This record gives sequence, structure tokens and C-alpha cells, in this order.
Amino acid sequence: MNDHKPLFILNGPNLNRLGRREPEIYGHHTLADVEAWCRVAAGDWPVVFRQTNSEEMLIGSVHEAIDEEAAGILINPAAFTFTSLALLDALKMFKGPIIEFHISNVHRREPIYHRSYVSMTATAVMAGLGAAGYPEAVRALKRLATEGRR
Amino acid sequence: MNDHKPLFILNGPNLNRLGRREPEIYGHHTLADVEAWCRVAAGDWPVVFRQTNSEEMLIGSVHEAIDEEAAGILINPAAFTFTSLALLDALKMFKGPIIEFHISNVHRREPIYHRSYVSMTATAVMAGLGAAGYPEAVRALKRLATEGRR
Amino acid sequence: MNDHKPLFILNGPNLNRLGRREPEIYGHHTLADVEAWCRVAAGDWPVVFRQTNSEEMLIGSVHEAIDEEAAGILINPAAFTFTSLALLDALKMFKGPIIEFHISNVHRREPIYHRSYVSMTATAVMAGLGAAGYPEAVRALKRLATEGRR
Amino acid sequence: MNDHKPLFILNGPNLNRLGRREPEIYGHHTLADVEAWCRVAAGDWPVVFRQTNSEEMLIGSVHEAIDEEAAGILINPAAFTFTSLALLDALKMFKGPIIEFHISNVHRREPIYHRSYVSMTATAVMAGLGAAGYPEAVRALKRLATEGRR
Amino acid sequence: MNDHKPLFILNGPNLNRLGRREPEIYGHHTLADVEAWCRVAAGDWPVVFRQTNSEEMLIGSVHEAIDEEAAGILINPAAFTFTSLALLDALKMFKGPIIEFHISNVHRREPIYHRSYVSMTATAVMAGLGAAGYPEAVRALKRLATEGRR
Amino acid sequence: MNDHKPLFILNGPNLNRLGRREPEIYGHHTLADVEAWCRVAAGDWPVVFRQTNSEEMLIGSVHEAIDEEAAGILINPAAFTFTSLALLDALKMFKGPIIEFHISNVHRREPIYHRSYVSMTATAVMAGLGAAGYPEAVRALKRLATEGRR
Amino acid sequence: MNDHKPLFILNGPNLNRLGRREPEIYGHHTLADVEAWCRVAAGDWPVVFRQTNSEEMLIGSVHEAIDEEAAGILINPAAFTFTSLALLDALKMFKGPIIEFHISNVHRREPIYHRSYVSMTATAVMAGLGAAGYPEAVRALKRLATEGRR
Amino acid sequence: MNDHKPLFILNGPNLNRLGRREPEIYGHHTLADVEAWCRVAAGDWPVVFRQTNSEEMLIGSVHEAIDEEAAGILINPAAFTFTSLALLDALKMFKGPIIEFHISNVHRREPIYHRSYVSMTATAVMAGLGAAGYPEAVRALKRLATEGRR
Amino acid sequence: MNDHKPLFILNGPNLNRLGRREPEIYGHHTLADVEAWCRVAAGDWPVVFRQTNSEEMLIGSVHEAIDEEAAGILINPAAFTFTSLALLDALKMFKGPIIEFHISNVHRREPIYHRSYVSMTATAVMAGLGAAGYPEAVRALKRLATEGRR
Amino acid sequence: MNDHKPLFILNGPNLNRLGRREPEIYGHHTLADVEAWCRVAAGDWPVVFRQTNSEEMLIGSVHEAIDEEAAGILINPAAFTFTSLALLDALKMFKGPIIEFHISNVHRREPIYHRSYVSMTATAVMAGLGAAGYPEAVRALKRLATEGRR
Amino acid sequence: MNDHKPLFILNGPNLNRLGRREPEIYGHHTLADVEAWCRVAAGDWPVVFRQTNSEEMLIGSVHEAIDEEAAGILINPAAFTFTSLALLDALKMFKGPIIEFHISNVHRREPIYHRSYVSMTATAVMAGLGAAGYPEAVRALKRLATEGRR
Amino acid sequence: MNDHKPLFILNGPNLNRLGRREPEIYGHHTLADVEAWCRVAAGDWPVVFRQTNSEEMLIGSVHEAIDEEAAGILINPAAFTFTSLALLDALKMFKGPIIEFHISNVHRREPIYHRSYVSMTATAVMAGLGAAGYPEAVRALKRLATEGRR
Repeated sequence: MNDHKPLFILNGPNLNRLGRREPEIYGHHTLADVEAWCRVAAGDWPVVFRQTNSEEMLIGSVHEAIDEEAAGILINPAAFTFTSLALLDALKMFKGPIIEFHISNVHRREPIYHRSYVSMTATAVMAGLGAAGYPEAVRALKRLATEGRR
Repeated sequence: MNDHKPLFILNGPNLNRLGRREPEIYGHHTLADVEAWCRVAAGDWPVVFRQTNSEEMLIGSVHEAIDEEAAGILINPAAFTFTSLALLDALKMFKGPIIEFHISNVHRREPIYHRSYVSMTATAVMAGLGAAGYPEAVRALKRLATEGRR
Repeated sequence: MNDHKPLFILNGPNLNRLGRREPEIYGHHTLADVEAWCRVAAGDWPVVFRQTNSEEMLIGSVHEAIDEEAAGILINPAAFTFTSLALLDALKMFKGPIIEFHISNVHRREPIYHRSYVSMTATAVMAGLGAAGYPEAVRALKRLATEGRR
Repeated sequence: MNDHKPLFILNGPNLNRLGRREPEIYGHHTLADVEAWCRVAAGDWPVVFRQTNSEEMLIGSVHEAIDEEAAGILINPAAFTFTSLALLDALKMFKGPIIEFHISNVHRREPIYHRSYVSMTATAVMAGLGAAGYPEAVRALKRLATEGRR
Repeated sequence: MNDHKPLFILNGPNLNRLGRREPEIYGHHTLADVEAWCRVAAGDWPVVFRQTNSEEMLIGSVHEAIDEEAAGILINPAAFTFTSLALLDALKMFKGPIIEFHISNVHRREPIYHRSYVSMTATAVMAGLGAAGYPEAVRALKRLATEGRR
Repeated sequence: MNDHKPLFILNGPNLNRLGRREPEIYGHHTLADVEAWCRVAAGDWPVVFRQTNSEEMLIGSVHEAIDEEAAGILINPAAFTFTSLALLDALKMFKGPIIEFHISNVHRREPIYHRSYVSMTATAVMAGLGAAGYPEAVRALKRLATEGRR
Repeated sequence: MNDHKPLFILNGPNLNRLGRREPEIYGHHTLADVEAWCRVAAGDWPVVFRQTNSEEMLIGSVHEAIDEEAAGILINPAAFTFTSLALLDALKMFKGPIIEFHISNVHRREPIYHRSYVSMTATAVMAGLGAAGYPEAVRALKRLATEGRR
Repeated sequence: MNDHKPLFILNGPNLNRLGRREPEIYGHHTLADVEAWCRVAAGDWPVVFRQTNSEEMLIGSVHEAIDEEAAGILINPAAFTFTSLALLDALKMFKGPIIEFHISNVHRREPIYHRSYVSMTATAVMAGLGAAGYPEAVRALKRLATEGRR
Repeated sequence: MNDHKPLFILNGPNLNRLGRREPEIYGHHTLADVEAWCRVAAGDWPVVFRQTNSEEMLIGSVHEAIDEEAAGILINPAAFTFTSLALLDALKMFKGPIIEFHISNVHRREPIYHRSYVSMTATAVMAGLGAAGYPEAVRALKRLATEGRR
Repeated sequence: MNDHKPLFILNGPNLNRLGRREPEIYGHHTLADVEAWCRVAAGDWPVVFRQTNSEEMLIGSVHEAIDEEAAGILINPAAFTFTSLALLDALKMFKGPIIEFHISNVHRREPIYHRSYVSMTATAVMAGLGAAGYPEAVRALKRLATEGRR
Repeated sequence: MNDHKPLFILNGPNLNRLGRREPEIYGHHTLADVEAWCRVAAGDWPVVFRQTNSEEMLIGSVHEAIDEEAAGILINPAAFTFTSLALLDALKMFKGPIIEFHISNVHRREPIYHRSYVSMTATAVMAGLGAAGYPEAVRALKRLATEGRR
Repeated sequence: MNDHKPLFILNGPNLNRLGRREPEIYGHHTLADVEAWCRVAAGDWPVVFRQTNSEEMLIGSVHEAIDEEAAGILINPAAFTFTSLALLDALKMFKGPIIEFHISNVHRREPIYHRSYVSMTATAVMAGLGAAGYPEAVRALKRLATEGRR
């Protein structure tokens, strides 16, 4: 019987446009595709999968993950990566592993995309693997959770 | 019959100390363990696995990868990440996918570890997944190579 | 028969206080006055006119403009101009002309008001023309839309 | 008979976690405790006490304080202190005294916590007094309001 | 009978090349076209229209505008925008409204084009509206002059 | 019987001019008034109250507080706040709570007043409460001392 | 018989407006007044007194001073102080004493007025003495010339 | 009968070495020579002439000048120019004219000598005129005092 | 028969002093010598050789080169290298090769000489070869023009 | 009989790829071609021509040039230009002329390519002349050596 | 017979607390112990050993060393290292060798401890050798004095 | 019987030129002299003394010191001090005391010599004592090793 704590997969602003937004950079798959891939990769681990353009709701989801003692958080904070100290404060309270995920390699972009607040607390960072990198991140997150990494 | 081009897995300075260097950060596995894991993950893809403390030899290996038209490069440049423009120049000439890999989350460290030269040309970055993240990176690299990503 | 696509006129935080907020700087007219002037200036072009203090809703309105293939966006992002990368990401997806509008000349203020994120994607910037500059911006936006500028 | 205008006590993101979030820094008392202490300290002055993770709602509360001509604002903006120009713009419109309050001494932390936007308009700053400092701030705010300070 | 004070429309270095200089950015219309449009937009207001590559002559024209108590100045200072403190000093002496005008959106360009000296005294800024934006700026300037704005 | 350790209330350069120096900022009360208020607020706690324009003497007083195991230090370092590393070094040796106090809100002033050396070791900061804030700080200091805070 | 070499007194852009430009800062005397005062202060030393808004002509006057082996240069470079490296290059060739003169105390103004190029070669700087400081500077220059200072 | 208020001439650290310290820069005259020259230049104005290596005593002298309503202050703050905010705070309280004086042209030296705190309040700056410039500064100070300048 | 387009050799401010200005750095040859050498090096290519201290005239010469479709421009912009964005704008319009030339190695000098505006558009840079480097630059320019380089 | 000291022509990392590396920037000629051209240009001067990816060997070659009292050094340090202080230290010991050579105009590239360590000691810099510029540099170096320049 | 000039060993603020201040960093020995060790190490060289918290007195001791033509100065300026330009000015006048001494390795601490003013004139720096490093520094100073180093 | 672990004395690039390189700065003694002095100072402690221009070999020597559990490392990293993060990473793994040694006082040089990477892990720093300081450093290192310092 499966008794894993859930994995929270949280997506920030504009990711609801995935597949339509600059597809030459972000690809043609939608967030629904991503969710499906993630659930497959998660296997028998429950998954909470969300997207929001609201900083408040993203923080709320992190609080929820804390309260449910989630196994891990996979977060693509999009633009909030670089501007939301409140999100950083929320993530700092989480005890399990956190993977910060970006579809494109943000470290290759302009300077305003170089200083990530979220990286200051994330266990790991994965960037530039494309949308197809989500399930790879899910598998890595399960491993980190199993190892008890933070 | 296997006709894949090789994957180059290149490791920079001090990584020959893996397993002995600050094991509370880098873990107890050695680079030999890592190599074994990578070869398993590579499956029927040939692997060139190297470590060196010499910038010149690291550049030489990149040149070799270019000449052999390697399928992809997985590089953990260690300290050269932040100081070697010559390595960046070499990597820029490579046509296939490049994954920049760090055992710990370098983005969580002091400012001198924030500005990666290698990221300016890398396809993807993976940091903080521990030594056990190497085979995950190998699998991701195979996928990127298969997709023809750069 | 009129078959113009709508113009989106979007206003950011604190602009609901217009007419009451520092009237010696921003004047005594309210946002309702501004809306009326804009509709007159728009002529037979439909107008979507909104104000919100919520970054999420502002982003949502930009997404809507994209989906409706609006003719153009006139946006006064107020303080979000300088802090919201998420808004910038949303605006980048819009194919038509964008005018960034500020009632006062923000370029004359303190340094924190000098670096506009929105300017990185806006077609044009108009600042310092007072509230009465809105209809002038509407007319300019119609021209830009007609010329197919981006 | 009591005819004081109300005191607004506003709390920003993650403060709903007070008592559970890093208690070694922030202590074990909850925001409900804080509210009770503040009401005692306020005496016969009415108190509006709120917490929100939403920038929009925090701005809305400031607007409300302006409309009700509140006697003073005690605000713990948490992470918004350092990122929200929109909150600064809202507070600038308030005519009465404003105390910026932080439970820990933020001036002792990393550089990203050094530049407060809110301080650019606050009458006074109190930081590092712990949660028990709230009622002290309430008493100070009443004095400032009585003195007609801004 | 018309008794308006003149509008000064001043153009800085290289604008005599308009129509031939990078037409994909600046368009195919010449400065003579622009002058004609401006005179139409000015209606019964007299117009002094000049172009010069000389900082000295540009300053001289501003002095002249001061001596004639011009109704307003519309200035496209081109590269002097970013390098001429002497021009700024001259403009500061003018009592009427000043519109700083740029054909392209300079705020979207490299950092050396971000800090405008002229903006430190200009009443308003318009940038990115193309050469066709000149007459729109003239109309706005007339309004500002009529309102007695500075 | 009272056996409290003393509270040290230390005032830096130019504060002997209080009441005469820019009274529109600092008010009309003198340091003698402040001392009287502080003694009342201290109740049965002994108070050492001093002012000096000498960095050496201020450091000496801190050394004295250390030797006497004072209950707490309330210090208004005035200009030394921003320039005296020697004072910081002295304060770091003190085991009890330290409140850094400023009559005006220094965080609202020019950049040279933004980086406080004293804040790097102070338990708490209070700024902008006026001269009347001194007794409030004394009461807060007693509480911090009672709680054993540092 | 008088055989002194001449003193060159050179004035930069906008100083032809003296007496009319912000008289609350620069006073009501004109440059003609200043010239008269300087000639009196010079006594039997010949004086070359000039004003120009042209960087080229100012450089030309410096070249002339070099060719005539002037006794000294008193220069108020106005805005060119901060922007003209060409003027600095010209002044560096002069063998005699140079006094850089500013009517107001430029060191008290905004940062763009803090870095003087001319100071890099000037023998002395006098700023803030008002227009009446010119003859004082002339007397000082005569002394420096007599002492053979550079 | 002479009823002038005194001129305070204050000299900061290391100036007691004048004549012995780097005479190729500072000349061979001693501070006693300087004092004598200044008294001659002052004529029937009383002069308070002091030198100290102590910041405290320099501040004390400024306080004294304030209490005596001195006619003006001529201050050569030497190294304190660049490090003493406490001196700046003291000088800000003085109502009369202040001349900041430096024997050599400090603006020609390394960057640490470029940002003068004292200049932020001084009426005028004179630098590079040599020790013989003191009496010239005294005469200028008398004029400024007579004109009621600040 | 010779049908080459002319080479423009343009010299900026203070270069008319060549041979007299700091000859230990710039040598004893005059600009007339340089012109003679250049004409020899040019062979049967026509040469337009000019010097000016005026930014306006230098820009005018660049415009002329554009209109005449010159084969190439060899420019020693002297101090304008570092201050004239207007010159940069003019040079950007030229279609042929541009060599930026400096007699001394400006990259070895103080920081204000490190950031060349002209380099942002120049095809090549030659610095430090002395006055005798001019004819070498002319030969290189002919080659670049022949190769059709830009 | 030829008794010239040799010319050292040293090439840094990745230049062994010349002709294959980004040929649209660096051209199709190989380093062997370059060597041949240089030997022709050198005429009867002996040439030591080397390439290495090793900082150590490049330093060694400079030491060798010193020991052999080479006539001059022509060095294309490639990426070491910007990162190797050790190379700078070695070059500083060389008594003859040094030309720093870059195939492309590095001053036109991103900021990390703007600050050359080698320029701090080089006699001259040539950049952007293409691979065909090597023999031109050789001829210039012979001239500088003949003139005894350093 | 011993005719050595004395060695001055000068200690700055808070060093009177040695042995009691953060002994885990600075050790348990007192300044009296240090003095005794130094006198032994000095052998037959006379020693002037002082500590002060006063910048003025430290400067005075340096003046004394100059007047007595001391053989050398060993100075541990503590916090004044980083803040006292007046101390730097005093030390610059000393003709003999100066060793700047720090008990801990200040170069390993936060950035505010990285820029030493004293190092700008010191002959040598020794840091991190612990209190027991004092006598080693005394021996080194004697050697430097004997060699006539500065 | 002597059973001390060896002392490693490591020297970086260009130090093989000691005695020949800028002898007015570095003196006339060679590295062989230095080695001899060090062996004398080491007494019965074994010494491993090396010099290399290769970063790789220097790192290799540090690894060796780690493997042999050397008593201490005395390292003069020369230019690698400021550029080699890989060397820093290697040194961090060493458990014993490390003395960073520089012949001249690098803290007195240009800014590029101010930020030492090696200092971030060194126990102590000694700079400016000349080549004769090596044996003094050896003696200090023996003491630190005996005390068990790190």
C-alpha cells in the first residue's frame, strides 16, 4: 500500500500559456501535458499540481505543503524567481527537498535573470532541460526525498 | 548494433578528491563510483569519462569531443566554472548539447560562485542533486541529444 | 461597419485613487474622467478599460488581450513598472503595439524609478503629459496599430 | 465617550505562520496572541487588525485607512518591505503617523534586507523587539498620533 | 488675430540624416517631412524648426527660446540627451513646457542610453512613436502651454 | 530591595546640542529632559546616563558597561553609527541587550545614513519616535533584559 | 614698464546668461560686471577675458594661452567641467598655474556634479564664493604665477 | 570701534606638522606662520585660531563658534574631511558662512579623497592655493560674512 | 586609371598640437608629417585628411564620407573617443571599414580612458604604435576595404 | 649577415582551432597559414612561432623570450587576455616591445571582454584586423624594435 | 653599548580588552603578556609600548615616533585600520619601516574589513598569527630597520 | 629522533625568476637562496620546497600535502592568489595551518591585487617582508603547527 506524502509541483506566472508562449523557446507542449508526464513519473506518489499567476496563491500552496508535510516541492517560480522575497520566506519554512526548475537556461539570459531569490533556499536547481525535463525533475525529487536531503 | 556517438563526461579540478573532500557536502562516493553509475545510465552509448586538474587538458578534451562529433558533453567544471574564459571559448565551438553539472547548489553559495562563465553557452544546468545526480544528468543528456537540442 | 479589434487600457495599483492622490502632482480628475476621455478618443474602436491593484489581475488582462488579439495595449503600470517581471513576461507575448504611459515624468524622479521593466518590451513610452495625456496616447496607439507597428 | 479614530495594524506575507515559523527567531507566540496584546495596549482606541499574503489586499487596507482617516498605521510588511513599491505609493497617501515594525532586527541580516522601501515614508521604525514589541509599538503610535506627528 | 508665442522644435546631431539613417528603425521620411507635419499640427502657432550637429548652436537656440519667451520647446536631442550637461543647464532656464522626444524607444536600448540628462528638467517624455509622433508631440505641447504646465 | 544591574544610556556627538539643533527635526526638549524621562521610565533600575563627543569616551563607557555587567545598553550613537567600527567592536563584547536609538528616522535620509555599523550587533533598532521615544526605549530595554535577550 | 604675460579668464557654456540665470543662486551681476572686476584685480597684468558656449572655442582659447605663454588661466568651465575630456587634454599642455572656478559650491550638488575632469589638472579649485569671488581668484592666480606654481 | 564677531580658523589632524610634513607638497611655512598671516588678513576682526588632532575638540570648537555666533568659520579639516560625519553634523548647525580649505588640490588625488563630507554643508571650497592661500580665504570669508551669505 | 573611392583620415581635438604636446609621449613629428606619410602609404588612393577640435565638424566629415561612399575611415577621435555618442551615431551609418587609431596605448591609462564609444562600431582598433603607425593603419585600411570588410 | 634577435609570436588557447572555429568571425585560414605569412613578413628576422592551450607553457615562452633577449613579442593571448595575471607578470619582465593582437575587435564584445590584463603592459594593441592582420603586426613590431620602443 | 633608536609598538581601540574579548578568536593572553614578549624579542632595542582607544593619542604617538626618529613602528590599529585617514596621514610622514599587525586574519572576514587604509603606507602586513605573533613581528621589524627598508 | 611531518613550501608562477625579476622590488636573492634559508629555519622539520608556473601542479602539491598530512603549508601563490578558485578549493581541504606569503606588500598595489582568494582560507598572511621574510614565516608556521592552529 502506498503511503507516500504528496509531491507538490507548483508553477508560477504565465506558465498557463505554455505551448503558446514563444514556442521556439518553450516548446509546443502545454502545462496539461506536463502534468500528465509528471504523474507518470511520480508513480505511486500522490501529486499536487498547480499553476497560478498570483504570488499570494503560490505562497498559500507552499504553506499547504508545509502543513501536509509534503515529500518535496518542485517549483517553477517563473518571474517570481527574481522578484519575490515573500516566496523565499515561505519556502524557507519547508523541511523537505526543493527543486527549483526552469524550462530554459535562465543563467544564459540578461543580468536581471541571474540573481534568483529561490536559489537561496532550494536544494537543487535544474534549468534548460525543456518542458520534457519536468518528469526528470520529479524522479530526482523522489530520490532526494527518499534520501532525506534538504 | 550500437552506433551512438560517445558522451563526454568531463570533471574539473579537485574532483579527484571526491569522497574525501568535505564529505558532509559532497558525500562519500568516489569519482570511480560516479563513473560506474554513469556508464550504467548511458546504456549502449559509449562514454568518455575524465577528470583533470589542468585547464589545458580540459580544453583538450572539449576539442576532442568536437573532433569526434560527440553526442553531448556533461561537464562539472568545478572552480573553472567561474574563472576560465578559455574553457567557455572551447565549449562554444561544440555543436551538441552541453549540461553543466554541480554536485552542490552553487547558486546558494557566496557571490564569487554566482557568475558562471560556462552557463553562457550551456544548454542546461543541474546543481545540488548530489553525486547521485550524475546518472540523472546522463539520461537527460541522451534525451537532449536525441531531440537535437543545443 | 466597425470591425476594429479592441484597445486595452490597463491601469495598475493606486490609480483608483486618481484625483485624490497627491493632486498637485496627478491633478484633480478621476479615473472615471480618464475613461470617458479615452472612449471619446477611441472613436469607433472598442475599448476595454480596467484598473486593479493586483499584479495577477493585470497579468490576466494582458492574457485576455492576447487571446482577443487586441489592436493595442495602453498600460499605466504604476509601481509595477519597476518591480514586476511577471508583467513584462506577459506583455512580451502580445503581438500588437504597447504604449507605456505615466502621468508624471518618472524619469525626473529618484533612481528607483529609473529602470522600467515594461520599457524593455513597450513600443513607445509617454510620461509627464498629465492625465489629459491619456486620450493623446489613445490616438497614438490607434495610429501605431493601423501602421502595424510593434 | 471614546471617539478615537481606529489604529490599523497590518501584517504582511507569512506572518500567519507566526509561532510555527523559525520559532528560535520569531518566538512561539501566534498572531492571535499579538492581536490580543495590541488590543489591550490600544485601550479605548479601536483597532483594525489584519494579516494577508496578498500585496493587493495590503494596499486595499491602506486605502481603507486613508478613507477612514485612521489615527495611525502600524505595519509589519514582512518581505514586501523590500520589494513592493506599490505599497510605498499607497502609504505615501496616508496623512497620519506610520510605524514600520519588524520582529527581528532586519538591519542585521543579509544585504537584500537592508534597503526598505517602506522606510522611505514611515515616521518611525522599530525592529528586533520580538513579537512582544507589538504592544510597545501600539503605545508609541498612539503617542505619535496624539502629537500630530507625520 | 494670432498672438501665440512660437513653438521651438529643436533637433540634435545626425537628425539631418533622417530617412537615410537606418530606415528600418527611423523610417523613410526626412526631416523636411517632419517639419511640414509639425507646421500643420501647430496650426496658427508660429514654429521655429531647426536641426544642428553643434552643441553650441543647440544651446544658442534654447537661449533664443528663453529670450523670445517661447510657448514651449519640443526637443529631440539625439545623442546629446545622454552626454550634454550644458544643454541641461540651458533648458533649466526655460520657463515653459519642454517635451523630450525620441523617434525610437531609447529605454529599450543598451544601458548607455538609459540615463537622460534632459529628462532631469523635461516636463514630458515621448519615445518610440516614430517620426509620425512629432505632430502628436506638437499638439501635446500646445495643450501643455495652454495649461501653463512646467 | 532593588538589585537590578544598571541600564547604560549613552549618547554620541552633538547630542549635547539637543533642543537647540534643528529643533524642527529634533524638537525643543534638551538632553536633561531626556535624562529625567529615562530615569522615570527606569523605575527602580539604576541608570548611567552620559553624552560625549568623543569616540574614545563612548568606547570607554561601553567597556564600563561590560565590566559592571550592565543589564542593557541604550545607545544613540549619532554620527558614529555610520563611521565607527571601533564602537562596533566594543559593543560586540557586551553580553546583554542593546537598543540602537535614533531620534529621527535615519532610514529615510540620504544613502550615507543607510548603512549602520551599530546595527550589525544591536538587538533592536528604534528610529523616528522623537526625543519622547527615549523612555519607550528604556521600557523595551528592561523587558529585553528581563527576557534574557541578546 | 609692465611686461607681464596675460592672464586668460575663460568662461564656459551658459555663463553669458549670468545675472539672468537662476539669480537666487548665481546673483544679479552680469559677466560684464565680472570682467570689469577682474580687470581691476589684475592691475597692470593684461587680461584676456572670454565666454563661449562652444567646446571647440574654449579649447582654442587654451591653445592660444599656451602659444602666448600666458601667466595663468582662470577657468570657469561650467558644464564642460564634468563632460569634456578634450578640455582636460588641452589644459594639461599648459605650463602655468590653472584655477578652476565655480560660482556656486558644486561639491554640494547632485552626484553628476562631483567628478570634475578639469580638477585632474588644475592647480587650485575655488567654488561657492559667488560672482564676487572672481577678483579674489584673479589675485590668487597672480600670486601663484609669481611663485612659479603649477 | 571694532565690534566684529570673531572668525574661527580651525585646523584638523596632522596640521601641527606643517612645514615638516612633505614640504614639497605643503611648503616650508609652519602653522604659526599661517596664523600670523591670517591675523593680518583679518584686520580688525578678532580671530580664534586652533589646531587639534582630536575630532572631539574640533567639534567642540564648532559648538563654541555657534555659541559665540562667530562671523564665519574657515576650516581645514584635513583627513576628517573624508571620514567625520560628526563634524558635518556640527557644522550644519552653524548659521554663518563656512569655507572649507585644503592646502593642496585634494580633487586631484586618489578616489578616497574625492567625497568630502564637509562640502555637503560648506558655503565655499578653496583647494590647492598652498599655505599662502589662508589669508586669501580669510579675506573671502570676511566678504561672505559681510554679505550675509550661507 | 585610378578609380578608388577616397580614404578619410580624421583627427580629433588637440591633435593640431602634435609634435608640441607632451612629445615624450606623442613624439616630435607634426600632423603635417603624418599627412605626408599617409598620402605615401595610400598610393593611388585619394585621401581626405582633416583635423578639428569641433565635434560638429568631425560629425560633418563622417557624413561627407558617407555621402561620397568613401572606401574607409581612419579616425583618431582623441578625447571624443570617450565622450561623444553623437560621433558614434554618425560612424554607425558608414558602410565601409573603420579603423580607430590612437597614438599611445590608451588601454594602459586611467579608467576614464578604458571605455571607448567608437570601438562599439569600429572594425578594428590600433593603439600604441606611435605617430609612425598611421601609414601602417592606412595600408591595413586599404586591405580591409579591398576585402569588403565591415 | 643577419644578426637580428628573434621575434616571438605566441598564441593562446583555442587558436589551434583557427579556420574551424566560428569561421564567419575568424575566417577560414589556419594557424599554419598565419605562421607562413608571419615568416614572410619577418624577412630576415628569425621567428619563434607557438600556440598552446596551457597558461604555464605560454608563461614559459615569455620567460624564454626574456632569456634570449628577443627583439619583440607579438602575442594573441586569446581568453588569457582577460583572466591571467600570471601572464601579465611574466610580460612585465620583458624589456622589448610587445604587441597584443586579437583577430576580432574584442572591444566591441560583451563587458567580460573589455578589461585586458595584457594591455596593462603591452606597448601596442591591434584588434579586429582579421587573421591577415598578423603580418601587418609583425612589420609594426619590427619597426618598434628598431626604434627601441617599449 | 646599546645605541639603537626605540621601536614603537602601538595598539588601537579595544586591545586593552585582550584576553577577555572573544578569547576563542583572540586567545587568553593579555596585552601585558604581549608587552613582556615584545620586550624579550626586542633584546637590547628600547621599546615604547602603548595602547589607546583614542585616535588622537594614536596619532600623537606616531608624531612622537617621527620626532624621536624611531627605528620602526609595529602597529595594530584595530578598527582604525579601516576608518582613520588621519592615522594614515600621520604614518606617511614616518621614514622608517612600519609593520601593520592583526591578531586574526582580517582578510578572511566581511568586506568592511578588506580595505585597510594603513596598508597603503605600511612596509609589511602580518595577520592571523595570533597574539604570539607579536614577538615574531618585533624580530622582523628589527631586521627591516637594520636593512634600511621602507 | 625527528618525527615531524613535513612543511610544504610552495611557490607560484614567475617566482623561478626571483633575483632577476624587478630586483628593486623583489631583491637580488634567488629562489635557491630562499630554499636554503627555509631549510635552516625549519631545523629538524622536513621540508618539501617547490616552484611551478602551472596551476595544475600547484594544486597537485596541495593534494600531496593533504595525503601526507603535512604539518603546514607556506604558500606564495603569486598571481594565482587573485585568480585561482581551484587553488582555494584545494587549500580548503587541508587540515593544518596555512601561511599565505607575499614578498612585497600586495595590499599597497592596484585594486586588482586587493582581493585574495587564498586569504579566504589561509590561517595567516605575511606580506612585504621581502625574500628574507621566508624563514621568518617558516618559524611562525612551525609554531602554528605546534599549537594545532587552523
